Amino acid sequence: MPLAPADDAFANRLGKILPAETLRPAEPRFLEEPRGRWTSTATWVALPRDVDEVAAIVTSCATERVGLVPFGGGTGLVGGQLHPDGPAPLVISLERMSAIRAVHPQESVAVVEAGAILADVQRAAEEADRLFPLSLASEGSAQIGGLLGTNAGGVNTLRYGNARDLVLGLEAVLPDGSIWHGLKRLRKDNTGYDLRHLLIGAEGTLGIITAASLKLVPRPTNIGTALMTVPSPEAALALLALARGQLGETISAFELLNRTGFDFLAETLPDLRQPWNTAPDWSVLIEIGQSAGSDPASALEDVFAEAFEAGLVSDGIVAQSVGQSQDLWTLREHIPEANRRIGAVSSHDISVPLGLIPDFITRAGAALAALGDWRINCFGHVGDGNLHYNVFPAAGRTPEDHINQRDAIKACVHDLVHELGGSISAEHGIGRLKVDDLERYGDPAKLAAMRAIKAALDPKGIMNPGAVLRA
Amino acid sequence: MPLAPADDAFANRLGKILPAETLRPAEPRFLEEPRGRWTSTATWVALPRDVDEVAAIVTSCATERVGLVPFGGGTGLVGGQLHPDGPAPLVISLERMSAIRAVHPQESVAVVEAGAILADVQRAAEEADRLFPLSLASEGSAQIGGLLGTNAGGVNTLRYGNARDLVLGLEAVLPDGSIWHGLKRLRKDNTGYDLRHLLIGAEGTLGIITAASLKLVPRPTNIGTALMTVPSPEAALALLALARGQLGETISAFELLNRTGFDFLAETLPDLRQPWNTAPDWSVLIEIGQSAGSDPASALEDVFAEAFEAGLVSDGIVAQSVGQSQDLWTLREHIPEANRRIGAVSSHDISVPLGLIPDFITRAGAALAALGDWRINCFGHVGDGNLHYNVFPAAGRTPEDHINQRDAIKACVHDLVHELGGSISAEHGIGRLKVDDLERYGDPAKLAAMRAIKAALDPKGIMNPGAVLRA
Repeated sequence: MPLAPADDAFANRLGKILPAETLRPAEPRFLEEPRGRWTSTATWVALPRDVDEVAAIVTSCATERVGLVPFGGGTGLVGGQLHPDGPAPLVISLERMSAIRAVHPQESVAVVEAGAILADVQRAAEEADRLFPLSLASEGSAQIGGLLGTNAGGVNTLRYGNARDLVLGLEAVLPDGSIWHGLKRLRKDNTGYDLRHLLIGAEGTLGIITAASLKLVPRPTNIGTALMTVPSPEAALALLALARGQLGETISAFELLNRTGFDFLAETLPDLRQPWNTAPDWSVLIEIGQSAGSDPASALEDVFAEAFEAGLVSDGIVAQSVGQSQDLWTLREHIPEANRRIGAVSSHDISVPLGLIPDFITRAGAALAALGDWRINCFGHVGDGNLHYNVFPAAGRTPEDHINQRDAIKACVHDLVHELGGSISAEHGIGRLKVDDLERYGDPAKLAAMRAIKAALDPKGIMNPGAVLRA
Repeated sequence: MPLAPADDAFANRLGKILPAETLRPAEPRFLEEPRGRWTSTATWVALPRDVDEVAAIVTSCATERVGLVPFGGGTGLVGGQLHPDGPAPLVISLERMSAIRAVHPQESVAVVEAGAILADVQRAAEEADRLFPLSLASEGSAQIGGLLGTNAGGVNTLRYGNARDLVLGLEAVLPDGSIWHGLKRLRKDNTGYDLRHLLIGAEGTLGIITAASLKLVPRPTNIGTALMTVPSPEAALALLALARGQLGETISAFELLNRTGFDFLAETLPDLRQPWNTAPDWSVLIEIGQSAGSDPASALEDVFAEAFEAGLVSDGIVAQSVGQSQDLWTLREHIPEANRRIGAVSSHDISVPLGLIPDFITRAGAALAALGDWRINCFGHVGDGNLHYNVFPAAGRTPEDHINQRDAIKACVHDLVHELGGSISAEHGIGRLKVDDLERYGDPAKLAAMRAIKAALDPKGIMNPGAVLRA
């Protein structure tokens, strides 16, 4: 049975049971996504202020079979926050539920609402002398609800895990309008199926997360940063193993960079000062965070010395000040912007088993060369096996010149990732962009289980219809 | 529709599709559990050697509606591995699937079969100069499948998380006999619902885990151990916060001990040398593991000095050798044995939010005093909020004297735990022992979701019937 639209008549009925101003005509910001690939068919947005209002909204949608699309900070890259076709859904934004309900420094826990912006949660943790380690480019606008709905990754995953690893408990509204009061602050709780991990990463298709208990960690006070030139991706992996042996879990980030990224920076952002005239083919940006009394710069110099002996690094800079450290990170953080300015033919957020990264890079490059002449910017969180593998036109050509090759490029990269036991969506999720890919590459038994779970928890199919699983 | 029994006729039919010796009359070791509370009605056990045989067994059980009870190392404390009433189920043991399929030191990953014994996995990791940090009393017999099925905890949870936090991927047979090939070795993979975390902790009610990709971590080479006397549980928590500030995440264990535990040791195991004549009311056993070049004993002495200044500790021993460290741990590890020899009236595996531990201890003691005269041994993984809160008869009396008060004691403790937002099963799971408790204290929306998931994935109810959820 098809869904009914969230039209003016529905809005009129729903508006009567909600406080004034809760239901509004949807502004354009709720109908667009960063890459401009889709626009939503929605015309109404609900802006509840507490979990009971969320429950009332979900209940109405369930009763009337109206689709409901949760919208966080709107920063998702796979279209999970938009519904581009079919009956208009109701958009629900929790931006008015942005309270940091409590911070418990002694427990290293923060309890926050889903509409809280990541940067605000980071700040609240810091004020309590703790760290909330989730960190990514969009942290100034991404909301906790969206970050958990998509199980966001980011730069500190190597040390602290993905978003799901930072959650102790959830409050959520399930597709039948019932409220799950699961906002526990417990490190150990074995009382039945882990509904928390089922909702995290379900991209709003199994319910709406309204609040979360988040793990905080000790704030590393002494930060060290280094940029080291490595002869190859193999050497980068050996350097990671060596650094882990010396530094234990204090490595917060281990980012592989390649020459194309620096060339793009030089071409599009020439004011950014680079530490070399000619960038090396491969380099690694390392960050470590240690506790008081340590000397991270010296620890990184020790790693460099041993790695140099072993032929794993040929050159390097260890930041001697916070300013130098920031300069190194500024380079890394501007690579996505440089990529945008150059314009990719096809971008891929993939992961492969760590040990197969060199194999992947070699084989993907060879396979793509058979399709044409490309500039490939392969960079990313190599400590997690997560590469952003982006394919650009040769100099002098534009992405539009290759528009007909996009699908072939994507299939070429994803087929290889799949063959190597990797993931075609390491950190961005499935959304609407990768529904086909999930059907193509996903394990059939897992897909069948996912569909059974979706049908069991959301039998009317109202929750973010068409995201993750075909509606 | 009720389940059919795994009787001789069924065994005869199933035996024909399996290799010889795969199906056997169940030996007593598959029909008992450590506390002797239940015995199983089963008469047959299946001992498959690969995932295809597991799938064939599950498929037969599904077709004939026969219950199937996964049996790991048999060390579970809540009866999840036994089926004490109703039609005899088939027991399935994966003890012949005990291979460590691969260790990838560079990736810090081990791929192991479900029948592998924890101590063997630890050893394989150590041979690759890595640590598999899951550690608990029964590690010499507990199997990976059971440890994941119950999301086991243990002593290193504070630093490394519970069993579920150490799993990258799973291979499993779902209740319809389909095989989920999810044995990925990826740190980042956002491709649909997290079936892995749904199976982990489901206690075999949603499928049978047959193999797992496990995270290894850098092996801390320099270990420090200290036993510090604290004036109160509040001081223990303040000491934990102080130690975390100084030592970051290197704290592997932070165990609260109370005088009753040491008194029981003196009474039942007098040959164990204790470091004092009269044990303090409260003390804390701390272990830290640091990387090469550090001096953990000196780091612990620094913590002690600062804590002493702050009035958080009054006395302490920092181990100066591996032998001294082992002596301290020997005391801690023998407390469960001393408890067994004394004989508890009622034992509780509970957790509360860290900051509420002192409140819990005070209030639980007062509430129980109203019921009688007890000796209470409250000890455990306080860094995780996880206490083993065990109630013993006064000296000169026996557990049997109080048999009629058991339920009242349990209700008293569990009601308070629930009121404080805690868990009535921190690390042991629900099994069959706590099905009533889960119904009483569990969140209704979560319970409804659990039942819907169970019905969707296991519509015939064959997987570990009666465990976690009432059959």
